[in-house]
Amino acid sequence: MTSLEDLPLRPELRGRTPYGAPQLAVRHALNTNENPYPLPPPLLADLATALADAAPGLNRYPDRDATALRADLATYLTRTSGVPVEPAQVWAANGSNEVLQQLLQTFGGSGRTALGFTPSYSMHPIISAGTATRWVDGHRRADFTIDPVRAAAQVREVAADVVFVTSPNNPTGTAVDLDTIAALYDATPGVLVVDEAYTEFARAGTPSALTLLAGRPRLVVSRTMSKAFGMAGLRLGYLAADPAVVDAVQLVRLPYHLSSLTQAAARTALAHTDALLATVDAVKAERDRIVAALPGLGLTSVPSDANFVLFGRFADAHAAWQALLDRDVLVRDVGLPGWLRVTAGTPEETDAFLTALGEIAADHRTTEGDSSS
Amino acid sequence: MTSLEDLPLRPELRGRTPYGAPQLAVRHALNTNENPYPLPPPLLADLATALADAAPGLNRYPDRDATALRADLATYLTRTSGVPVEPAQVWAANGSNEVLQQLLQTFGGSGRTALGFTPSYSMHPIISAGTATRWVDGHRRADFTIDPVRAAAQVREVAADVVFVTSPNNPTGTAVDLDTIAALYDATPGVLVVDEAYTEFARAGTPSALTLLAGRPRLVVSRTMSKAFGMAGLRLGYLAADPAVVDAVQLVRLPYHLSSLTQAAARTALAHTDALLATVDAVKAERDRIVAALPGLGLTSVPSDANFVLFGRFADAHAAWQALLDRDVLVRDVGLPGWLRVTAGTPEETDAFLTALGEIAADHRTTEGDSSS
Repeated sequence: MTSLEDLPLRPELRGRTPYGAPQLAVRHALNTNENPYPLPPPLLADLATALADAAPGLNRYPDRDATALRADLATYLTRTSGVPVEPAQVWAANGSNEVLQQLLQTFGGSGRTALGFTPSYSMHPIISAGTATRWVDGHRRADFTIDPVRAAAQVREVAADVVFVTSPNNPTGTAVDLDTIAALYDATPGVLVVDEAYTEFARAGTPSALTLLAGRPRLVVSRTMSKAFGMAGLRLGYLAADPAVVDAVQLVRLPYHLSSLTQAAARTALAHTDALLATVDAVKAERDRIVAALPGLGLTSVPSDANFVLFGRFADAHAAWQALLDRDVLVRDVGLPGWLRVTAGTPEETDAFLTALGEIAADHRTTEGDSSS
Repeated sequence: MTSLEDLPLRPELRGRTPYGAPQLAVRHALNTNENPYPLPPPLLADLATALADAAPGLNRYPDRDATALRADLATYLTRTSGVPVEPAQVWAANGSNEVLQQLLQTFGGSGRTALGFTPSYSMHPIISAGTATRWVDGHRRADFTIDPVRAAAQVREVAADVVFVTSPNNPTGTAVDLDTIAALYDATPGVLVVDEAYTEFARAGTPSALTLLAGRPRLVVSRTMSKAFGMAGLRLGYLAADPAVVDAVQLVRLPYHLSSLTQAAARTALAHTDALLATVDAVKAERDRIVAALPGLGLTSVPSDANFVLFGRFADAHAAWQALLDRDVLVRDVGLPGWLRVTAGTPEETDAFLTALGEIAADHRTTEGDSSS
């Protein structure tokens, strides 16, 4: 029997384990920030039609440039951000993971450095490793916010070629203000990637980094249809940036990377944007209900602009995670001592989560006396 | 206006242009080796049902391990190769391009070397560049075959970490014998990738490299559903290898890379394998008809086990390509002096191609006197 160690792996990969949230059979799966609301029946009807219409053409390669889809995405961004976004500024791939990988292949790679502000989206360092880009952990304050002066100084100090800012941040939930983003842009001669996977859930008055694109050709905003659009199974991520950035990723994108079915389904979903995003307010209400309930259980949370809440603090977060799982509620242990992350979804899910949490909170919360800080 | 050169591109990418066969509106598109036969109506009906059934679950992430699809692919390989292939030996991705990229991220990369026998599939060096893997052109004889002794010596000399053998080769068409593949395996301490994208079209008695897998943990066979299966628009490539290789690519694969729609559609197509592969014999007959007609036009071809023919020789291949395009027939100029590549498809396509070729052959064929060699 051959083992991994018998194969001529790249040295950096030795001893690593694959990324993976557990895909467990559980009653309440609140661990991957999916949108639990059923997709609107008119969308399902249109998807059935669009996919059946696309099927006879499957013997031909898809549109390599995804022209129609990129135009639809540009229309969506223009309508929701208030700034004009042209199709030539948009690029799409199989999930924002592939978008980020293409950006690192283009602007990172061997001999180059990426920096992100830990804790943040755990795929940023993993994709950096997969593209042989050196990774540096950026600094956050104890409350998980970014100090713009210190952060800009660190970006300069390590001469980061690719800087990641996740806004709203995952797993902590808080959006990053535009002044900080602008300061980080000025601090790097490289590319600043603002990962806005959760932006549709932000609290009122939180502008998108799309409003900073004009005049900043090294700024990239990445988005996904996995969260607010409720299309995690579709795998559709995209970016908006200067058209030159879109030209640049053409040099590394795999030709025909986006299937005909993906392009057809994504366009159909975008035609139902209003119906899909109608669940966003419901999710935000559940998020805020979770936040409001925590102090009564002797727990606290980090301010959230996303469809999840980082909550704690626990004496042993993993033990609390297991106690919730024993009650059929799967949340995410993101490896932050004292904290767990829960996805906000339906009222029934919130009920189940808060009931289970109520049963375990007294036994698991920290006794350091700072749990409500 | 920002240009590519204003961006902080990786130095190796400067001056490059993206891969791309022209996607031109033309009556007879014989340039990308697609399968032109209409997909079977019972398959289309089942695809419509399967995709409609998958749509309501799109709000959830897909099966990250594509377990059911890999089992179906293993069944197909077992049935057609005559050797048992287990699901744990199979991995799938968005086109064989993504499979190859994952292999290079795992076993190639900065400081490592890939070698392939040029001319061959042009994406091999491009994906190598995209993963910062050094590329070395392997040697072929004048008739485009591989000399196993000289090839093995070259693999040893450059200490190749990843060796590509395309069999049947693209763009020349000829399958590689198993003795050569075994010799190359023994010559490298790295990974030998046999790209069998066109294997279903091989002439009778051409065995797959799958029959060499037992006892060779560094051998990888890659396949695609784009060609014989007529599913280019689906983007489904896969590999078979030792289970340890499948474990290894998990370290670099993007999580949830394969959408729910892709998994559902691929499984449905595999359930119609016999109907889909029924067009293979028709395509081979057209290929052989093209080959047989060439000498009458003062032209020749390279022996083909694929759904295309490399034909020539021309005094100026690009001029001949343009002359055919002027007659609404798009073939592929693969950059080989004197040669062009044409996809074999329907009898009507062969008629149109041979008619156009008959009109231009006398003006464009080489006058060196060796065109029938």
